[in-house]
Amino acid sequence: MSENIIKELTDEVRSFADARDWHKFHTPKNLAMALAGEAGELLAEFQWLTPEESSVSSLSAEQKKAIELEIADVQIYLLRLADVLDVDIASVVREKLQINESRF
Amino acid sequence: MSENIIKELTDEVRSFADARDWHKFHTPKNLAMALAGEAGELLAEFQWLTPEESSVSSLSAEQKKAIELEIADVQIYLLRLADVLDVDIASVVREKLQINESRF
Amino acid sequence: MSENIIKELTDEVRSFADARDWHKFHTPKNLAMALAGEAGELLAEFQWLTPEESSVSSLSAEQKKAIELEIADVQIYLLRLADVLDVDIASVVREKLQINESRF
Amino acid sequence: MSENIIKELTDEVRSFADARDWHKFHTPKNLAMALAGEAGELLAEFQWLTPEESSVSSLSAEQKKAIELEIADVQIYLLRLADVLDVDIASVVREKLQINESRF
Repeated sequence: MSENIIKELTDEVRSFADARDWHKFHTPKNLAMALAGEAGELLAEFQWLTPEESSVSSLSAEQKKAIELEIADVQIYLLRLADVLDVDIASVVREKLQINESRF
Repeated sequence: MSENIIKELTDEVRSFADARDWHKFHTPKNLAMALAGEAGELLAEFQWLTPEESSVSSLSAEQKKAIELEIADVQIYLLRLADVLDVDIASVVREKLQINESRF
Repeated sequence: MSENIIKELTDEVRSFADARDWHKFHTPKNLAMALAGEAGELLAEFQWLTPEESSVSSLSAEQKKAIELEIADVQIYLLRLADVLDVDIASVVREKLQINESRF
Repeated sequence: MSENIIKELTDEVRSFADARDWHKFHTPKNLAMALAGEAGELLAEFQWLTPEESSVSSLSAEQKKAIELEIADVQIYLLRLADVLDVDIASVVREKLQINESRF
């Protein structure tokens, strides 16, 4: 069983980029753009659906698969961005939840 | 040590939403919008920086902190979206990396 | 010569939607999503380019054409959104420039 | 009466940038990022509303004003981007509508 699945996935994504010599492209600025582009594609899967049609029980298997792959794309760029910026995702998520806790 | 940090964080984010009775707002459609909005805020942190200025060694502590919290916001909504859609993030990331492996 | 090209284009975009009976899809919420999705596609045209490579003199004819069509897509949804919300784009642009004038 | 309101607004936005010496920041890459960031802010205005609540008759005056100013921000960056890329917005909108005409 994984000790830390986020670190494992981060390593896998880094290896993928390393193998293709993509480091020069993977500046934080460019990765933030790529992430936002993928978030836009995820959005597009839902744009003409009613809220009800967007629920897990209403989506077709084909829609569900397309959405899963867009979720993966967003996560991949988020892992990569956090990696090049030396950000510990789990820590900052918990820090932000604490901040939100005091706000809401 | 965590068995699966993604599941743990997912549970923490769900509890946060549960405690505030936010379920009616958390349709997949709305969560995809919130995620894209946060991706836009992350983008805004980098928009006037050169690629060099966006590197981890060039960012000020204040910029780094702001970026970390935006990364957290994107991750929080991605965890929440995956949760309401019953998507296993680690699985779909690996599935997408496999697809990319055969493409690039 | 056009009296108001924005109104003309707005009418053309509305006719296009009317002819396809798209009114039920064109809620402000959905149009804002579609606009953000297109902004993401525009972003994707630039994500791996250096700032220098993104300049008009460096882009290939093919890149330029792709970018032009993405600019058009963003403008089309912005016209449509403003139309369904009864927003006069020229007025609000000038109002916002006035606000910015006092801020910067 | 304006001969071409898009050209007029483009000139006003360019003068605003000129007066602040913002040219070095206004690369097409950076402007596409700023535009997407503003599209994200526009999105955020709608993210927790039902489609019905997002209609012009349901929005409060305060919501309407906030949305108008976000529409203005998106339009301002779109005008600026088209300007630095020598793109004639009206032409490309009509070209894209022609393409869509044959597609749908």
